[in-house]
Amino acid sequence: MNETIQTLMNRKSVRKFTDQSVSDDTKQIVLEAAMHAPSAGAMMLYSIIEVEDQALKDILAESCDHQPFIATAPWLLLFVADYQRWFDYYKVSNAPALCAEFGRVPRTPQEGDFLLACMDTLIAAQNAVIAAEALGLGSCYIGDIVEHYEQIRDLFRLPRYAAPIVLLCFGYPTEDQKNRKPVERFDKKYIVHKNQYPSFSDQDLLNMFPKEDIIPNNPLGRLPQGQRNYIRKFTADFSIEMSRSVREMLKNWQQTNPDS
Amino acid sequence: MNETIQTLMNRKSVRKFTDQSVSDDTKQIVLEAAMHAPSAGAMMLYSIIEVEDQALKDILAESCDHQPFIATAPWLLLFVADYQRWFDYYKVSNAPALCAEFGRVPRTPQEGDFLLACMDTLIAAQNAVIAAEALGLGSCYIGDIVEHYEQIRDLFRLPRYAAPIVLLCFGYPTEDQKNRKPVERFDKKYIVHKNQYPSFSDQDLLNMFPKEDIIPNNPLGRLPQGQRNYIRKFTADFSIEMSRSVREMLKNWQQTNPDS
Repeated sequence: MNETIQTLMNRKSVRKFTDQSVSDDTKQIVLEAAMHAPSAGAMMLYSIIEVEDQALKDILAESCDHQPFIATAPWLLLFVADYQRWFDYYKVSNAPALCAEFGRVPRTPQEGDFLLACMDTLIAAQNAVIAAEALGLGSCYIGDIVEHYEQIRDLFRLPRYAAPIVLLCFGYPTEDQKNRKPVERFDKKYIVHKNQYPSFSDQDLLNMFPKEDIIPNNPLGRLPQGQRNYIRKFTADFSIEMSRSVREMLKNWQQTNPDS
Repeated sequence: MNETIQTLMNRKSVRKFTDQSVSDDTKQIVLEAAMHAPSAGAMMLYSIIEVEDQALKDILAESCDHQPFIATAPWLLLFVADYQRWFDYYKVSNAPALCAEFGRVPRTPQEGDFLLACMDTLIAAQNAVIAAEALGLGSCYIGDIVEHYEQIRDLFRLPRYAAPIVLLCFGYPTEDQKNRKPVERFDKKYIVHKNQYPSFSDQDLLNMFPKEDIIPNNPLGRLPQGQRNYIRKFTADFSIEMSRSVREMLKNWQQTNPDS
């Protein structure tokens, strides 16, 4: 099978890394691959912040759901959805002054721009992940970065139109991690449809996990997966906090005085 | 150089396809690669809708900024950020009834869940793009799909917690497209930073495009890029409509009565 397809199929999250550091050459290839990702109008609506400062790494490890491996991961990249650079560029280009001539009204970045920037950001992040994998580097997405928006904003001095979206940890996987069983995917019938959104029967949904997976010595381990996930994740404090944090983020993208 | 890295570096958007159709084997590999993408808690918070119905393709071509190549593209995939499947699964699992026992409060999918689902969706979409590229298939992201939310929702019968995020067009590139010059990327200093968000001087920003690119016979073609982009895109009707549409989408993800 094609090497690239194999790379895509074999990629697993890695949360335990060897002590081997990531060479600067390897880092530059991964960053170039990210920057070559498709981007709406080639605007590259993102920034990538390499987190090298140990104090920052320690805070992130705590803040992102107490995951100590983040503090010791050999290489961390924070992917930021970024309309600030372009908005500042518009201003220094004196672009708003042209509006009258062309029948336009000045505006500030809004919700659509946020989503567009998120698209660019995540597409670039996944290119980084695939490039890393191709070079033997394991990686892990940390979505928890969106949970404490204000803290992350202040820590990295993010301006108004720069929103933290994902943190990526990279390093060489331990043998243990290489041999880890990959997490199973749902059957294609739950994911891929033709021409319209499907309607599932109750029984279809209850069969989404082909077998129940009891976790011993866990107070929620005896529950069927739908119940366990609802209690452990969906209604847990961190989920509620995540939505509060994202709402706070989104407030920045509401139209304001375009001179602000 | 590594084949996968080459694939990532060489990928360009393709908007002109030959008549060659995409075989079912090829489609299945691309879909499998998408489904193997990293996903938060392996929840796979997306649905992929293959758009085969010509009437749907014709409407999309019109609705997505009048791009006729969409109607004739050999293979179209609509990527939908999807919390509906899981939310329905929670309900049929009778999960909300357990809240009292575990000190939780039932809730509905919210803004944080939307962003999480967008992440899964875009990461999977990019895996599809890379797999396609590795198999000789060109692709093009159509972000305009978020511009007319209500129309797309009705067309594909999307339920409340399923949001259209990107449309992907696939096909074999014409010779002309293969030889097309790739769009230049910004210098790394604009994109990659260390430990904190950068501050650019006005001159730095004005130098973001290394050379001005005058477009002949275009009323905006004489403008510097910052001005042209602001008038042609940022303040254009479609940008304003995109944010209205995304705001409408986001209304669905505000907390409501969890039984709704």
